[in-house]
Amino acid sequence: MTDIRMRGFKQRTEVRGFQGLLRERISPLGEEEIEIGAGSGRVLARAVVSEVDVPSFPRSAMDGYALRSEETFGAGDYNPLPFRVVGEVTPGKVFPGSVGPGEAVRIMTGAPIPKGADAVLMAENASEEQGIMQAKEAVAPQKNIGRIGEDIRKNQTVFTPGRRLRPQDLGVLASIGVGSVWVRRRPRVTLLITGNELLKPGEKPSGAMIVDSNSIMLCAAIVRDGGEVAQVLHLRDDREIIREALKNAPGDLLVTTGGTSVGVEDHAPTLIQETGELLVHGVAMRPSAPTGFGLVNDRPVFLLPGNPVSCLGAYDFFVALALRRMGGLPETWSYRQVRVVLRDRIASQIGRLDYARVRIVEGQADLLATSGASALSTTTQADGFVVVDQDSEGYAAGETVSVWLYD
Amino acid sequence: MTDIRMRGFKQRTEVRGFQGLLRERISPLGEEEIEIGAGSGRVLARAVVSEVDVPSFPRSAMDGYALRSEETFGAGDYNPLPFRVVGEVTPGKVFPGSVGPGEAVRIMTGAPIPKGADAVLMAENASEEQGIMQAKEAVAPQKNIGRIGEDIRKNQTVFTPGRRLRPQDLGVLASIGVGSVWVRRRPRVTLLITGNELLKPGEKPSGAMIVDSNSIMLCAAIVRDGGEVAQVLHLRDDREIIREALKNAPGDLLVTTGGTSVGVEDHAPTLIQETGELLVHGVAMRPSAPTGFGLVNDRPVFLLPGNPVSCLGAYDFFVALALRRMGGLPETWSYRQVRVVLRDRIASQIGRLDYARVRIVEGQADLLATSGASALSTTTQADGFVVVDQDSEGYAAGETVSVWLYD
Repeated sequence: MTDIRMRGFKQRTEVRGFQGLLRERISPLGEEEIEIGAGSGRVLARAVVSEVDVPSFPRSAMDGYALRSEETFGAGDYNPLPFRVVGEVTPGKVFPGSVGPGEAVRIMTGAPIPKGADAVLMAENASEEQGIMQAKEAVAPQKNIGRIGEDIRKNQTVFTPGRRLRPQDLGVLASIGVGSVWVRRRPRVTLLITGNELLKPGEKPSGAMIVDSNSIMLCAAIVRDGGEVAQVLHLRDDREIIREALKNAPGDLLVTTGGTSVGVEDHAPTLIQETGELLVHGVAMRPSAPTGFGLVNDRPVFLLPGNPVSCLGAYDFFVALALRRMGGLPETWSYRQVRVVLRDRIASQIGRLDYARVRIVEGQADLLATSGASALSTTTQADGFVVVDQDSEGYAAGETVSVWLYD
Repeated sequence: MTDIRMRGFKQRTEVRGFQGLLRERISPLGEEEIEIGAGSGRVLARAVVSEVDVPSFPRSAMDGYALRSEETFGAGDYNPLPFRVVGEVTPGKVFPGSVGPGEAVRIMTGAPIPKGADAVLMAENASEEQGIMQAKEAVAPQKNIGRIGEDIRKNQTVFTPGRRLRPQDLGVLASIGVGSVWVRRRPRVTLLITGNELLKPGEKPSGAMIVDSNSIMLCAAIVRDGGEVAQVLHLRDDREIIREALKNAPGDLLVTTGGTSVGVEDHAPTLIQETGELLVHGVAMRPSAPTGFGLVNDRPVFLLPGNPVSCLGAYDFFVALALRRMGGLPETWSYRQVRVVLRDRIASQIGRLDYARVRIVEGQADLLATSGASALSTTTQADGFVVVDQDSEGYAAGETVSVWLYD
């Protein structure tokens, strides 16, 4: 490969081929053990098998009276049957005696069923006065009793690897006495933000200097897709500085922004060629064409365009895919999808994928922009985007299309 | 209101009425200023108006040559026109001179357009040798130039209050030189976990003691719905201890679990009666019936059932609504919704809402459970839930229903 600066892209990789390459080159990361309190959204790397039954004892499912069910047969509102209340049992306690004939034990939801009893009569169907409870309903054996292992059985596989832990999953883990789990490690990303014209977020734009908007956008997106930001480095357009960072910056994955195209200060592609392997440079996509991908010391490096819309599009199509694979998440975006009628025509070319920002007005999608890679505001005015696949020439006005919603 | 313990709920509040009450009683919290780097997912409390144009100077949208467009007219692949390259301008720099007749300045994407030039010829349509550039395409005036304010205009309202900040929104804020924004404060929640039978998450269940699974589940759900966990207190079933916590625990909102029903150790409802106002006790919902709501010192207190499925259902229907309102978020759940055919019948009663857990198999929904409030595993085996509204008697097998997906 020769220096491509100021000569234009020789050929552009098709999006599907690029994504296929990423699936070949990028594998899930290793595992780590974490406390379940930090487990929300994490992806299990190992199965979880319960060492206990839940519940581990027969327990009452109601507030009421534990008794011998056959003694309630025939009871009703007009035929209450009396029982002698010989005690009470609350959750966490064990009734020390046993329930004999004609006896009942007042019991609360969750408390262990006393010996001798085989059912619980709900409090609502009983009345109690001076130690005598009147049963107004007949209960069948085992009525209102939670059986041993009813929720989870000992030796049951509760979760399999790949499970993304939900709030209630953490509850189940707690209930079986599990305090920590093995999960897929989260990919750590370092951002190399290049451009002599860039100020840092929080600074005021002035003169020919503009504020870097990509780093702050990418940091939020990386976290959303299950990654962690290791470091954000703002670098001058200096080959030695960028070369050093490509080799030695921390992280499982590097993302550069800016300097990815064919300009005289676009060092990143040639540096990847020199220090590693440049696998993709130029993508058949609008916007986001000046995107690249390579490996330096076996570490994936994404070259994202500096133009913020291109940067976001390239992130969503390639970096997000890589992060989600590394972290063991499903490849599909977290964006919700809706089907709406398109009010405008979207024209594309066979072989090229278009990332068209749309606004949804009265249930119909208005095209905001397909080009305009530098106007980030098109992605904030938009409700979402339509993808025109590489096999399609676009959509006619009036067609029903899928819109990926930005939030 | 008299002591309702061991007598059953006198009446149950319908779900829609309860939610209406919450909308009356619970308002958005105040605002706070945060750095934009911490802004992802936060809700703007004040509008953001740009003090600058973006870009604030005419800039090149391409790598190429800045020149006088009329001098390119007639140029083509077979009729290249020569220009003298008098310099170069890169982003962040200003070209010190001016572009005269027959001259061109090499320019990179994002660099300011030099004086005298009114268009940029793409590098791909030019070749340069020994200081002479051959133009192989004619360009119209303003071609490949980003105009002042093209992205964002000075004094433009960029975001209005209520906006939930997306990754690209943070980028836009950075680009206009905004370093911090005023956002809705996140509701802080203290959990009061009651029950003598409860061990803390991470401990092993033994004897009649079980592990609290609700706190860890609720913490994750609270964060998902835009809240913060102020404190998690595990309390014994002791009226004085619980009374003290209801009055003095930190937070914008309190959530108790356990002790909400009509058992002898169900202190929470009567304590709310004594120390504040008990507005709801008992809800027409399956599961989650023993749910309550009140105010103590004007602070909202939710009484959630100890049974974990009931706890989750009551959280989703009532606490999530309150948190989202306080934090300025839309009331709708973050759960995605799909329409699928129900394979089983779900029977309900008019007036009662059912929260039925379903598993989706081959695109159809199988009913896992409507009751079984204690078996949290039904919510982990399920893919989501179907809501049978209070006006409905349920669904027949074969009907198409909406399923809210747990993830």
